[in-house]
Amino acid sequence: MIERVCVVGAGVIGSLYAGHLARVADVTCLVRREEHARALNEHGLRVSGRHHFVGRLTAATTPDGLPEPDLVLHCTKTTALEPAAAALAGRFPGATVMTTQNGLGAEEIVRTHGEWPIVSAVTFMSGTKRSDTEVDYVLDTPTWLGPYEDTPFETVDEVAHLLADAGLKSQALPDVRPAQWSKLIFNATVNGVAALTGLPHDFHFSDQEHFGELVHTLMDEGKRVAAAADVDLHDDPWEMNVLATKRGSAHYPSMLEDVEAGRPTEIELINGALVREAERLGVDVPLQAALYALVTGREAAYS
Amino acid sequence: MIERVCVVGAGVIGSLYAGHLARVADVTCLVRREEHARALNEHGLRVSGRHHFVGRLTAATTPDGLPEPDLVLHCTKTTALEPAAAALAGRFPGATVMTTQNGLGAEEIVRTHGEWPIVSAVTFMSGTKRSDTEVDYVLDTPTWLGPYEDTPFETVDEVAHLLADAGLKSQALPDVRPAQWSKLIFNATVNGVAALTGLPHDFHFSDQEHFGELVHTLMDEGKRVAAAADVDLHDDPWEMNVLATKRGSAHYPSMLEDVEAGRPTEIELINGALVREAERLGVDVPLQAALYALVTGREAAYS
Repeated sequence: MIERVCVVGAGVIGSLYAGHLARVADVTCLVRREEHARALNEHGLRVSGRHHFVGRLTAATTPDGLPEPDLVLHCTKTTALEPAAAALAGRFPGATVMTTQNGLGAEEIVRTHGEWPIVSAVTFMSGTKRSDTEVDYVLDTPTWLGPYEDTPFETVDEVAHLLADAGLKSQALPDVRPAQWSKLIFNATVNGVAALTGLPHDFHFSDQEHFGELVHTLMDEGKRVAAAADVDLHDDPWEMNVLATKRGSAHYPSMLEDVEAGRPTEIELINGALVREAERLGVDVPLQAALYALVTGREAAYS
Repeated sequence: MIERVCVVGAGVIGSLYAGHLARVADVTCLVRREEHARALNEHGLRVSGRHHFVGRLTAATTPDGLPEPDLVLHCTKTTALEPAAAALAGRFPGATVMTTQNGLGAEEIVRTHGEWPIVSAVTFMSGTKRSDTEVDYVLDTPTWLGPYEDTPFETVDEVAHLLADAGLKSQALPDVRPAQWSKLIFNATVNGVAALTGLPHDFHFSDQEHFGELVHTLMDEGKRVAAAADVDLHDDPWEMNVLATKRGSAHYPSMLEDVEAGRPTEIELINGALVREAERLGVDVPLQAALYALVTGREAAYS
């Protein structure tokens, strides 16, 4: 029985989970800034868009003094996961920990800091932070969850039901890697191309007149790596791409937001992870490797 | 005997040629802006840096009323060449026309507008415009010149001597394509990578820890196209790259300046030309094609 949840990080994804979960559990929220914690404690977390309510929760900048949770959700970006996971080392021994990060390798980072059972999650939910205490819920796609290492499926299923009770779509899967890899290949390509060109995810990405062909080849490289890793993809990333570019309003990929703001991107656990897996498995991915090198160069140009 | 020269375009390269040539010939200069023409007529063109003097010339925004020149130097960017060449259609039938543009195809554009004998030139000269009437001469590398179609070599040699008399290094070659292609491959790679990453041409481009490997592979693709076109390169573009990145002060490639200013880049006659030649010759250049598509995307993102 999950009664207490600790959500680490209150960006868009963390806020969406924390706000919804506050309706069915006691939620604590770990954030980086003192004023963010104060605002959340004072005003709660307003969810707008697809749902409308205010979730009440307890926010803090350190886990000291927080009640022991049954479930921890790591919702920072991959670039902030290492210190966030380290801050929980030696704490909350009875908790299950769920990772929600993009790319590959979040579970391994958490594992180096504790023996918690880990649930791997993948989500395409999206939204917009209106302020420290309001998040607009835009895309209400499901969270897919699966066991990591020997986490029992019952644990995964329990978390999936909790999310559903909170009003979020969710699905427990015996193996989440097919979904994780679909998103990995999609993200490595779409985020990388968007970060380099400055284009949001629009018709250029699926149109053969523009760089539909490049995007297609990049995704084919990714699919060859997945096949070599014995992963039978949950969704075809090219079809996800075509579908998304037809949705009308062009999505602004987070890696593009990051390079425009001069922030570190998630390149290492997304494109870096894909290229390293390709190397390990002996698959040639020259275009994905180029994308990885170029975005790394874009980061090196910040100053 | 070349007594009158008309220089079209007074950016860095046009200004360097016009200023120097004004010391040994009657120079007219065609520019786009009225105030640029007025300033040049009033103050002349000051050359600083490696040389120090003021060249006196006649500037105008249209060729109407200009004296017939013996030699025309096209010094606009490739993106402005078509209208500049069209403006001279039906004029100056006795003149020789020299192209100095990056990439491939400038001569063909000029040819569509007249039957002038054409001299193909390639230059790595560089400098900085201080104002409409001052250019700082930085890199004094030679201009290489060769005949286009059936232009006699004597004509090429005469232009090369004129440049030398004016104080500019120059070399007449029986075939300038080996130099043109060396610069093409160098520019397609260095300008493309710089435009996408935002990095000036610095150590990242030759260091294996960064994207030395990507740059090397991109240049190998270009070299395979040159070989298929039966061009025996004048300089190895990779060695040019290593040499340039060791020079200390990092050069800011013009395509990077263009994307930062939101201006059209020279992508079509540089990367576009290389990729189209590859297609025509049946050479596979996936990385150069990706660079081309991505920079085109970067331009599409201007708004």
